[in-house]
Amino acid sequence: MQDKWILGIIQNRVTEEKARNINKARDMISEAAARGARAVALPEMFNCPYDNKAFPLFAESYPGGETIRMLSEAAAANKIYVFGGSIPEEEGDRIYNTCFVFGPDGTFLARHRKMHLFDVDIKGKLKFKESDALGAGNEITVVNTSLGKIGVGICYDIRFPELARLMSLQGAVLMILPAAFNMVSGPAHWELSVRMRAVDNQFYVAGIAPARDETASYVAYGHSVAADPWGQVIGALDEKEGLLMVEIDPKRIEQVRNEFPLLKHRRQDIYEVKGKY
Amino acid sequence: MQDKWILGIIQNRVTEEKARNINKARDMISEAAARGARAVALPEMFNCPYDNKAFPLFAESYPGGETIRMLSEAAAANKIYVFGGSIPEEEGDRIYNTCFVFGPDGTFLARHRKMHLFDVDIKGKLKFKESDALGAGNEITVVNTSLGKIGVGICYDIRFPELARLMSLQGAVLMILPAAFNMVSGPAHWELSVRMRAVDNQFYVAGIAPARDETASYVAYGHSVAADPWGQVIGALDEKEGLLMVEIDPKRIEQVRNEFPLLKHRRQDIYEVKGKY
Repeated sequence: MQDKWILGIIQNRVTEEKARNINKARDMISEAAARGARAVALPEMFNCPYDNKAFPLFAESYPGGETIRMLSEAAAANKIYVFGGSIPEEEGDRIYNTCFVFGPDGTFLARHRKMHLFDVDIKGKLKFKESDALGAGNEITVVNTSLGKIGVGICYDIRFPELARLMSLQGAVLMILPAAFNMVSGPAHWELSVRMRAVDNQFYVAGIAPARDETASYVAYGHSVAADPWGQVIGALDEKEGLLMVEIDPKRIEQVRNEFPLLKHRRQDIYEVKGKY
Repeated sequence: MQDKWILGIIQNRVTEEKARNINKARDMISEAAARGARAVALPEMFNCPYDNKAFPLFAESYPGGETIRMLSEAAAANKIYVFGGSIPEEEGDRIYNTCFVFGPDGTFLARHRKMHLFDVDIKGKLKFKESDALGAGNEITVVNTSLGKIGVGICYDIRFPELARLMSLQGAVLMILPAAFNMVSGPAHWELSVRMRAVDNQFYVAGIAPARDETASYVAYGHSVAADPWGQVIGALDEKEGLLMVEIDPKRIEQVRNEFPLLKHRRQDIYEVKGKY
């Protein structure tokens, strides 16, 4: 079985300058690697303000985009897996909210396009309609790595228990979730959701948020947090920029699943979650 | 639309005397009705110690059993819905962990037999093997009432997000969950689970626990708790015996589902939870 390993969670503060965001991310990836991370994860829209107007301006295409190249180069330079949060990705006439994943030699491994778009309207508190600017992905993403299988969702994707369940059934040991919950949904549901997906599926869940910027049009909650397969918080940040190192231990997954065999106890004769792809 | 209404949550302390447990439940049902409850719910095994050895001794059959008769009589006497927690129910050569539900005229409405049996072994902390003594139910239970459709699960049934999801899709406005989490699983997962099933399915969830008895072989956590469709705790008890009155407001469900339309945003083209019955 895979030994335990360290995941570096990067909570950068996103600015309106793309080059500055890219440089900050590159520096924090190097710092995480220097501190022993075998993989790092960035937040949702780590290179771009979370704003429908900004997405087309900051968007780039695979493989030539500057952010995408930085992610690949930083993976290779530091010999680590890089889960590149998300960026606005342009393909044809659509823009997607996309996480690019690179291996320790800089190779492209996977791309997850946010599957569930954030269209909400809480009267007087919060309004956002992501589908005005973005297209939705149509694939569940579980990446094969030498550290185990790792599922990738983006922000609102965590809201749907079916998705985490299918990742777990596909063998994921960890769900990586770049996200930008806000000052309404964050206090209400952020840590709760990260912990509960871990409890239900008996795997690790890491929620990676940008640092809070009170001056932004969309104020992110921050508070990156990771939970173990028993739902215990194994590391958390506050709202400020920071780097969080958490330990992923496959033996802990095996232990929890042996002692409290939730996945085996599912009544598949009565119900089933089916993927359709 | 149905007006708001009050659910009475009864957290009785279970003793080794069946008659005393029955009388206590009857009294607390009357008290809840007197305080305005339209429906009441009792905890798991409210008439019997939670112990494999006790189940056959306390078991009774429908319709003649004394506990079952009390539930029907108390419903009729107080003109309220009674969700009878659970009791050991004998049928043929099997015993089930069963919730009986009666309408305001005392009519039998439904019976939920716990679908997921609690077989766990957390080394040095907690060991229980319900399947040594009990059979499992094979049906998802959603009861049609004049207050709306109400789903019923028992304790470990809450562990499986598929079940709550199917209840919600069947139109449930409330999931009633008689349960006896313990001193290991209670602090770790009890309130978290009640809140998260509510958040995911945007309905009310009420978790009804027995009061804690430190002298019992299985020490229950207590802490009955209810959450609204946004996952906010709308009422909670500590570990002692008590009665908790919570308000169920169908308009709140409609509001949350309009503002934050999680159920509509499920990607049914990519995954689906299917019931097989």
